[in-house]
Amino acid sequence: MGSASGLPTLAVAGATGAVGAVLLDLLSTRRDVYGEIRLAASERSAGRTLQVRGERVPVSALTPEVFDGADVAMFAVPDAVAAHWAPIAAARGAAVVDGSRAFRTRPDVPLVVPEVNPERVRDRPRGVVAGPGCATLSMIVAIGALHRRYRLKELVIASYQAASGAGRSGIDTLYAQLEKVGGDRALGNRAGDIRGVVGELGPFPAPLAMNVVPWTGTHADGGWTSDETGLRDETRKILELPGLKVAATCVRVPVITGHSMAVHAVFEERTGRREAQDILARSPGVVLCDNPETREFPTPSDVAGTDPTWAGRVRCSPDDPNALDLFLCGDNLRKGAALNTVQTAELIAAALTP
Amino acid sequence: MGSASGLPTLAVAGATGAVGAVLLDLLSTRRDVYGEIRLAASERSAGRTLQVRGERVPVSALTPEVFDGADVAMFAVPDAVAAHWAPIAAARGAAVVDGSRAFRTRPDVPLVVPEVNPERVRDRPRGVVAGPGCATLSMIVAIGALHRRYRLKELVIASYQAASGAGRSGIDTLYAQLEKVGGDRALGNRAGDIRGVVGELGPFPAPLAMNVVPWTGTHADGGWTSDETGLRDETRKILELPGLKVAATCVRVPVITGHSMAVHAVFEERTGRREAQDILARSPGVVLCDNPETREFPTPSDVAGTDPTWAGRVRCSPDDPNALDLFLCGDNLRKGAALNTVQTAELIAAALTP
Repeated sequence: MGSASGLPTLAVAGATGAVGAVLLDLLSTRRDVYGEIRLAASERSAGRTLQVRGERVPVSALTPEVFDGADVAMFAVPDAVAAHWAPIAAARGAAVVDGSRAFRTRPDVPLVVPEVNPERVRDRPRGVVAGPGCATLSMIVAIGALHRRYRLKELVIASYQAASGAGRSGIDTLYAQLEKVGGDRALGNRAGDIRGVVGELGPFPAPLAMNVVPWTGTHADGGWTSDETGLRDETRKILELPGLKVAATCVRVPVITGHSMAVHAVFEERTGRREAQDILARSPGVVLCDNPETREFPTPSDVAGTDPTWAGRVRCSPDDPNALDLFLCGDNLRKGAALNTVQTAELIAAALTP
Repeated sequence: MGSASGLPTLAVAGATGAVGAVLLDLLSTRRDVYGEIRLAASERSAGRTLQVRGERVPVSALTPEVFDGADVAMFAVPDAVAAHWAPIAAARGAAVVDGSRAFRTRPDVPLVVPEVNPERVRDRPRGVVAGPGCATLSMIVAIGALHRRYRLKELVIASYQAASGAGRSGIDTLYAQLEKVGGDRALGNRAGDIRGVVGELGPFPAPLAMNVVPWTGTHADGGWTSDETGLRDETRKILELPGLKVAATCVRVPVITGHSMAVHAVFEERTGRREAQDILARSPGVVLCDNPETREFPTPSDVAGTDPTWAGRVRCSPDDPNALDLFLCGDNLRKGAALNTVQTAELIAAALTP
């Protein structure tokens, strides 16, 4: 153990970003997991101090020495930074839990969602464990629970992804655009009106306020986006279903935090609405919120800041007894990023703690 | 003919609503179709005058006499009003074109989308022709074009429906909520924050500003909403595919005007991306806007106020050569309601004009 407390030492890379902030909040609610906690970030943020577990902790620049004696390292950094620094941290002996895209599809890096495949955390030939993207994390815990009962065959997904999925600049851009459009009643009824008013597009390829933007992530082959192919590749890997059919359309919506997913899932076995609701209701990490009579269903504004995946609008298809349609919501910064990293790191820390 | 001009006389019921306003705009761009145009609305709105084809026209209360001598009657009124008044108008000799839900699924009422099944307008045993709902109209012209080439087998749809789909109160509610949330940076990161700020929910079952609401329409069986079952029933009827599999999840988004649809379509025949794009590009009523390299795709703010269905994000599934994924946008008040009514009525008017 790297710490006098007998508890593992943790290094956090990317402590100052949108996900990093949530990581520190979550770490502050978990007091007996780690001894020392070290914070690192880009050169630009070094020298600041941040609050963790009630204490001010200095942020150092990312150097190899940050990881000396660290048992676990959490990475909440861009892909290229993770690709470069995670192997360095692993070489210095830290078990790396990386939230970026850099290692997700590598066969020698496990892709772990603790509610779904916790056992995969044990075998990490490169010293790195990856977590899936926030789109996959918005639905995989609920879908994984249904898969255990009905055996999944096909997913058709349409997403409603929040601005914060694009980081702090996504949040800042949407707030700035909302400020500009405000309640301006001249807007919204003629083509292009909003484009002239919102100002900077930030990380989005079109105005987001009073609009939806059918593009998240970068460009992949055949017109698909990286988030769309990621949903397919990551779900196949996590559920160990290499032949799973997955078709996704990823869309950004003018919501600050909270990804939602409309999911059409086809299974090997016959489904049932009440049974599916029961499975979701009793699955760890899932909350069922589903009463059409009283218009109860999850919405992103109701789930932002909470840990679980919220499931609602559960329906059986009248055209296919093996299919279920549902609407899922989760906080993309918590379970969708920081919480999954924290939970995965805790599985490793628990194995290290005597 | 009811008019001295030799052109058909038109009566418009529901002239003062959100769809009625667009109806009058569209009628003003078409000068040689009708002779007299009469406007009717609820008692409350009677006595006002509205601009049509550059002239002020008085609005009368809805009475049976409004339809005496009218050749064509357009209805843009709530379901119950249409159910009561359309048979009265038909009994007085007017060919009724109704945009409401009242007659859509009746076997003796044709359900017409002029780009898809114009021939159906001819046979109207009850004197009434219906148009589908705005959700169906957002995608049926594009899907109908692809069906003619590949023969449709299954649709999985997730919608991004605008506030104006819920009428004037929907528009007013979203503007009022956007005014309240403005650019308030304290919002959006904690559960329920928005609920305390937006004020009146209006016609929506949850806050719409900075949120998405997975519920449109009324309650149907099995947890489905009326818009979701409507998409299924209407698409089956229009395409004359009684066994078509349709699974839809309908979601309201904080957009004033412009419905969008993420569609996964499975066909009898093998599809091709370029070919599908070509089919869409040359189909009347559809505009292709699809270049991933330059991030070109339709968004509701780009299409509001325009007539066609905009198609983009066309992709072939790597898992199923017979499937296509695409993103469609259309103005829900124009093609999604008023324009379809106007086009359908013109098919009837053209047959009446010598």
